[in-house]
Amino acid sequence: MRILSGLQPSGRLHIGNYFGMMEAALKLQYEGEAFYFIADYHSMTSIHDGKALRGNVRDLAIDFLACGLDPEKCVFFRQSDVPEHTELSWILSTVTPMGLLERCHSYKDKVANGISASHGLFAYPVLMAADILIYDADVVPVGKDQKQHVEVTRDIAIKMNETFGQGLLKLPNPRIREETAVVLGTDGRKMSKSYGNTIQLFEEPGKLKKAIMGIPTDSTPVESPKPTENSSILALYKLVASEADYNAMVADFEAGGKGYGDFKKRLLQGITDYFAPFREKRAELVANPEYVNKVLAEGAEKARAVARKTLGRVRQAVGLGD
Amino acid sequence: MRILSGLQPSGRLHIGNYFGMMEAALKLQYEGEAFYFIADYHSMTSIHDGKALRGNVRDLAIDFLACGLDPEKCVFFRQSDVPEHTELSWILSTVTPMGLLERCHSYKDKVANGISASHGLFAYPVLMAADILIYDADVVPVGKDQKQHVEVTRDIAIKMNETFGQGLLKLPNPRIREETAVVLGTDGRKMSKSYGNTIQLFEEPGKLKKAIMGIPTDSTPVESPKPTENSSILALYKLVASEADYNAMVADFEAGGKGYGDFKKRLLQGITDYFAPFREKRAELVANPEYVNKVLAEGAEKARAVARKTLGRVRQAVGLGD
Repeated sequence: MRILSGLQPSGRLHIGNYFGMMEAALKLQYEGEAFYFIADYHSMTSIHDGKALRGNVRDLAIDFLACGLDPEKCVFFRQSDVPEHTELSWILSTVTPMGLLERCHSYKDKVANGISASHGLFAYPVLMAADILIYDADVVPVGKDQKQHVEVTRDIAIKMNETFGQGLLKLPNPRIREETAVVLGTDGRKMSKSYGNTIQLFEEPGKLKKAIMGIPTDSTPVESPKPTENSSILALYKLVASEADYNAMVADFEAGGKGYGDFKKRLLQGITDYFAPFREKRAELVANPEYVNKVLAEGAEKARAVARKTLGRVRQAVGLGD
Repeated sequence: MRILSGLQPSGRLHIGNYFGMMEAALKLQYEGEAFYFIADYHSMTSIHDGKALRGNVRDLAIDFLACGLDPEKCVFFRQSDVPEHTELSWILSTVTPMGLLERCHSYKDKVANGISASHGLFAYPVLMAADILIYDADVVPVGKDQKQHVEVTRDIAIKMNETFGQGLLKLPNPRIREETAVVLGTDGRKMSKSYGNTIQLFEEPGKLKKAIMGIPTDSTPVESPKPTENSSILALYKLVASEADYNAMVADFEAGGKGYGDFKKRLLQGITDYFAPFREKRAELVANPEYVNKVLAEGAEKARAVARKTLGRVRQAVGLGD
């Protein structure tokens, strides 16, 4: 089973990204042959700053490797190291009805939210189809919001097969990522960059402490029981603490006698401990840029060999080249 | 001065193509550094038959070489041998406003004429911009109907330069091909495949004779003067005959005493003589497919070196790769 997933280099990862998406992706690498790529072509639809994009790509690569992505186990590469994606995208374009793209929610939503309506944003689902189809992927883990794009990919593949020969492209299946934990941000709403309530995954200790200690709390006196419902502190602690530690904090909330400052300190410790090995690994990677380069180069080579094979098959069928 | 021109492999060339476009292109190769490519990626927007597309590409290459395209003088290649075009096309997409493409007449016209509205057809001007910009072309000879696409190319280049740095891409200029000779078809209307009134450039002698002798004429008696206005026979003869021979035919039209059959025979002889050296060259090329392969391979290599250089500069500026 081949699993394909694109990772958006849209800035530093936060704890919400980790528990919402990364953890699942890291587990999946042991379930099949995983191809994970850093989607820098796609990011160009929102990032028009060469230095920023290159920095984000670098950070994402390091963050994933630090958190346990195993380049021996999966193929990890940068999308723009395999330009075959863009060639297949053009070929797919020629059988993609405009109506199929015009119906995509994601484009309409982004434009409604003030992102400028570029052709790249509109054509995004076609490039995504190429990303998936070029690896003959079986499974594409996506959030609910991306489900339609996998359906578009299937529609395009069906059209290609009808036009140029059955079996030319493999139809992928979406696997909808279960929203197990909606990770709460420091203000109790869903953790999201757009709310400015995130805690960065690799925040420096001083800033991490400030973020945790700054979580707004109610004015229940120290001696009284604290409400456990909708508590960001408890919700975040649950993600990083052992069951026993978590239950102990819940009991302390209910018993009263301990203040929020105490709970926040425990949360800070929990987060620090949970991510300590990743943080250590990250420091090693930052100190060893050649290793990261090597991983990406080797990933690109493996990915490109597969991509070229599929593209060769497609070029033969559609009449390009000899 | 670098000249860039894309040639559509849309089927066998006819005499109208030769005098309308090819002759001018062949002259231009001595005016500057010409890059001529067979636009097979573009043709995929209308041809969904691999064998037909590959055949058309081959025929177009042979026809151009037969008619005098000099691969020592210009860079002659197949678009799909330089997939860098599609990568640059994606990059340009991300700064191309949807409105710019929505305003393109060519897309609207084609859809109005019943061609299905594929995304490839819509995205065509972006790929065309990449075709031009990737070679830092100065001049793009186009028919009037393609002028808007060169303007779109300029708009996209300006947007790229504003976004990623002045001087990144060179602004090309259109050179509108003068419609010197509207070549008339066998029915007196403009020669065009859609009217079914074409005379193929390399038609076999029997069929050529049938096409010429079948040109409809009026019923003026042999002994009477013939009308010279709107005569397909005269119009076609003018293109292939010497001035003296043409004037002689005009005089014979005006004098009367000679029938249309006589004029048609002279026209047939004129066309046959005019294209005889090209026909001979074509037979040589058909007998020597390795030579054609070699020309295209060498052209691709030269083109690709230039394309890679431009693309490298762009990738650096936008933040792709290292």
